[in-house]
Amino acid sequence: MGRFTSIEELRKACSDLPARDPEAEKQARDREGMLTKPPGSLGRLEELAVWLAGWQGRVKPKLDRVEVFVFAGSHGVTARGVSAFPAEVTAQMVGNFEAGGAAINQLAKQVGASLTVIPLHVDRPTADFTVAPAMDEEALLEAVNAGYDAVKDRPDLIVLGEMGIGNTTVAAALSTALLGGAGADWVGRGTGVDDDGLRRKASAVDDAVTCHGDALKDPIEALRRVGGRELAAMFGATLAARHQRVPVLLDGFVCTAAALPLASLDPDGLAHAWAAHVSAEAGHRRLLDAMQLKPLLDLGMRLGEASGACLAVNILRGAIACHNGMATFAEAGVSDG
Amino acid sequence: MGRFTSIEELRKACSDLPARDPEAEKQARDREGMLTKPPGSLGRLEELAVWLAGWQGRVKPKLDRVEVFVFAGSHGVTARGVSAFPAEVTAQMVGNFEAGGAAINQLAKQVGASLTVIPLHVDRPTADFTVAPAMDEEALLEAVNAGYDAVKDRPDLIVLGEMGIGNTTVAAALSTALLGGAGADWVGRGTGVDDDGLRRKASAVDDAVTCHGDALKDPIEALRRVGGRELAAMFGATLAARHQRVPVLLDGFVCTAAALPLASLDPDGLAHAWAAHVSAEAGHRRLLDAMQLKPLLDLGMRLGEASGACLAVNILRGAIACHNGMATFAEAGVSDG
Repeated sequence: MGRFTSIEELRKACSDLPARDPEAEKQARDREGMLTKPPGSLGRLEELAVWLAGWQGRVKPKLDRVEVFVFAGSHGVTARGVSAFPAEVTAQMVGNFEAGGAAINQLAKQVGASLTVIPLHVDRPTADFTVAPAMDEEALLEAVNAGYDAVKDRPDLIVLGEMGIGNTTVAAALSTALLGGAGADWVGRGTGVDDDGLRRKASAVDDAVTCHGDALKDPIEALRRVGGRELAAMFGATLAARHQRVPVLLDGFVCTAAALPLASLDPDGLAHAWAAHVSAEAGHRRLLDAMQLKPLLDLGMRLGEASGACLAVNILRGAIACHNGMATFAEAGVSDG
Repeated sequence: MGRFTSIEELRKACSDLPARDPEAEKQARDREGMLTKPPGSLGRLEELAVWLAGWQGRVKPKLDRVEVFVFAGSHGVTARGVSAFPAEVTAQMVGNFEAGGAAINQLAKQVGASLTVIPLHVDRPTADFTVAPAMDEEALLEAVNAGYDAVKDRPDLIVLGEMGIGNTTVAAALSTALLGGAGADWVGRGTGVDDDGLRRKASAVDDAVTCHGDALKDPIEALRRVGGRELAAMFGATLAARHQRVPVLLDGFVCTAAALPLASLDPDGLAHAWAAHVSAEAGHRRLLDAMQLKPLLDLGMRLGEASGACLAVNILRGAIACHNGMATFAEAGVSDG
């Protein structure tokens, strides 16, 4: 049995979000000011160290247990010709993850993180959301619970990502539903569609918005109607992390869109999450700007699979290596300006 | 005895620059197209892997032996009040490097790189270049040789950085000399000068350009007249790396300015070097743009010490982890679109 047995329970959980530890955060900020460097000269590394300290509740954060979760799902909207790859690639790539051959396998190993791949009824696509809700309430809760239950025993950091042919169209639909604009504002080339494919993606999003109307104003209802299983699971994992005060690295456009309903429900809902990178997928930068998330990396990546977020783990490791290991001016006998 | 005994020998060495291995580069590029991801979806990670392959001359590059070099020098121009910190901090920070307390110690350890700190007559500042050449020919060659000789037995990658109170003014002077503009276009706040300090920096650069005139048109002469020992050493190390076909990560404003004369002498002179990051120091972005170098990271860092470049090593490790370890479409039985 999963964590949430009704939408009302889920809503309640989304309105009960713990804050970071202000004392650990303050002590970490004070420590940054004493280290042997000009104040602020490590730039965002200093912000990262203080952020990790606040959420982990320790002045010297650690990243011993870093857990990568990749959720996979299938999408009825692929019938609308929205992807350059056939829908069966989702299942094939799950096999590739399990065999260790995908990008995320190499990247998780390189940063010393565990990798858990969670396929969500990949053989059973959601409904085509241009004509019907993608999921019924039971299917939504099952997917949210799969993500929520994946986060156990307060790891030091979780890294989220996905695989699902067609899901940049899903992310565009969810972004349009919650932030406005037209489909064309949010769709991009995904795995590599041509101009006709791009038009089909924009039309699919516009049709979905017309089909579901005002029901999309509610973030959880939008997630059910124009979301997908892997997005719902990433939403659930982000929520679980918050309840355990675990910091989260978000990956690309689909992952960020999955976290969007939490930000729509509470302006502080993603204070425990950091955008690891901005992807080359057109809608991602727009989405990050709207959510006031400032990405760490900008390397033209657009693969998903948590690949960009996983790459950023070592930036966080660099941040805490400096924060935890550097000498203070007093310890080193260096004049502090 | 160092590598170069005359300026003419050095000039000759700068005009004799080997190219990368086109066959290894081509095979690496072909391999990228076969891996289980949409073409180009790993963005700059793909470029990095191909670049490393070309310079290392192997289809699957490695980063087992990564060497960080930090050169330190003292500058007569500090008498003009161009830094927020007193000049003796350079020697104190060398002590901090040796004791393991600085940012670069933590970052080098975190990426598994060796760290070599090379102080260059830190107790003997160069001349104030607003009124005289910073170095005579002997001093220039000694510093270039210190950098050149530091790169031994073809490591897999070298990472360059520096420490020297006053040296963002030196970097601004060298940039003005070789790329034009006024001092105010190139100076920034360095370790944290106020508005008056910023004006003093700009004036010092303008005075230097007036003092040395047309002699600054020659890149090596500019390095001697308005450079500094640690810049000359980074120039020498970059040159040595090219002769051994070793890829180089450049750090911030001072490090990039030190490599500039090689680009001025030969438009292809820095093909083996990658800008690891763009720093918060005002002139750095302008300098990178002028040199057509596209930085990997943009994290608001402005510490020097090779800190930004060292942080980028793990981005390269991620790139080769994917390149070397991923399955091909054929191996994984995934449909390739």
